[in-house]
Amino acid sequence: MAVTPMRRNDTGAPGSGHAARLTIRARSHRGPTAGLAPGFVQGNLAILPNALAADFLQFCRLNPEPCPLIGTSAPGDWRVPELATDLDISTDLPRYRVWRNGELVAEPEDIREFWRDDLVSFVIGCSFSFEEALMAEGIELRHIARGCNVPMYRTSIATKEAGPFHGPMVVSMRPLRPADAIRAVQITTRFPAVHGAPVHIGKPGLIGIEDVMKPDYGDAVEVRGDELPVFWACGVTPQSVIATVKPEFCITHYPGSMLVTDQKNTEFAIM
Amino acid sequence: MAVTPMRRNDTGAPGSGHAARLTIRARSHRGPTAGLAPGFVQGNLAILPNALAADFLQFCRLNPEPCPLIGTSAPGDWRVPELATDLDISTDLPRYRVWRNGELVAEPEDIREFWRDDLVSFVIGCSFSFEEALMAEGIELRHIARGCNVPMYRTSIATKEAGPFHGPMVVSMRPLRPADAIRAVQITTRFPAVHGAPVHIGKPGLIGIEDVMKPDYGDAVEVRGDELPVFWACGVTPQSVIATVKPEFCITHYPGSMLVTDQKNTEFAIM
Repeated sequence: MAVTPMRRNDTGAPGSGHAARLTIRARSHRGPTAGLAPGFVQGNLAILPNALAADFLQFCRLNPEPCPLIGTSAPGDWRVPELATDLDISTDLPRYRVWRNGELVAEPEDIREFWRDDLVSFVIGCSFSFEEALMAEGIELRHIARGCNVPMYRTSIATKEAGPFHGPMVVSMRPLRPADAIRAVQITTRFPAVHGAPVHIGKPGLIGIEDVMKPDYGDAVEVRGDELPVFWACGVTPQSVIATVKPEFCITHYPGSMLVTDQKNTEFAIM
Repeated sequence: MAVTPMRRNDTGAPGSGHAARLTIRARSHRGPTAGLAPGFVQGNLAILPNALAADFLQFCRLNPEPCPLIGTSAPGDWRVPELATDLDISTDLPRYRVWRNGELVAEPEDIREFWRDDLVSFVIGCSFSFEEALMAEGIELRHIARGCNVPMYRTSIATKEAGPFHGPMVVSMRPLRPADAIRAVQITTRFPAVHGAPVHIGKPGLIGIEDVMKPDYGDAVEVRGDELPVFWACGVTPQSVIATVKPEFCITHYPGSMLVTDQKNTEFAIM
């Protein structure tokens, strides 16, 4: 694929991922990124010191469902050329979270003052991509209809550990009628780079979820009598794992304030 | 694909569909066909007068999940060249059922004496094909482990009517753990010509099944607490519909005594 290099001050095509990043970089957009640049891939962010990079890469490789890695940077480099030409990871998200030894120390709008030459960025696929595919096929997603966050839960499913990284898989839940649940398995199977097929259907207790109305993250949404709760591996897993590991230094995105890339969701469909 | 014509008295390669048909034709095998010629497609049979053929073809086209048509004959012809070179539909099944005006009048081992010049044969895909694919991936099927028939149910799901043909869809049920149920959706989606993906998961009452332990056909199998009942459209649907329509004359296979073809199950996988 030919890539046209873009200069730092290009405005980007309207509605594109590039245009969204430029708007965020200029602080003209400050809130959640849901709904920005429809069709373009958004990602979860984790920035770690290079000393932890090999273990975290291995952790992602061993746990591709919750941690589908879609882009990484060179140490100290704020670019992620896999995902976009004109991208500055230190300015292009609306808000960040800065952690020291597992404690949240700041929630800045850019991280230029926190930058270090040993930092490596990891961008992890996000359910926004497959949600777009589900809605395109007419499957209604309740948390979107209600304008709230998807409910997320820590489960009894262990991730495969790598170096210091370990902990439970976090899953997101969407209530679906059985025929839609079957169709959703088919549709999301096409998107292994953004969590892929569900990891569980129908029996939350079997994966350690006692009450679906009490999520650990996000907002509760009702599961009706004619619906099944359908669970997907969630990109919050690495943040939960990092909170357990308490690395000396770490930066993540602020919940809901994702990285908007130049890649199209449809490029992630394997068939 | 090059097809080698086979003479009527060829013995067929051991273990092949052809060998199985020759053994049945010679009355050396008289029972159910489950387990015969592993890897080869088996089919449900319906033989109807040509006057009903167009309506039945239309019925199958409108209801591809329960009635996936994999072969048809010319009127009066006992051959089905789509499915095998050396095949005589009047002798190659272990047992048949002959119906007049909806009443069962005979269960013969061959139907040569009932043959008519206006009879058209319809061969409909069967779940044996996708069950083989499920087991090949390590998914245990309880009715097979127990050596009994799969449980089948008339549902509240209506088929789409064509001419006189109408009635409820019949489904088969296999209890699976949730992760296996998700995998089973993926695997059987690859086999649209043999019922394809499930039509329902988890809530039998929603499709008119009051008690999964009381099937309308086949044998009851337990659904354990850590399992979901998974339902597929079933090739018994056309027999149930024919029983409703009560055509003047009709022949079907005897339950469990299917047509063994020369096609491979793997040829039916679309990816």
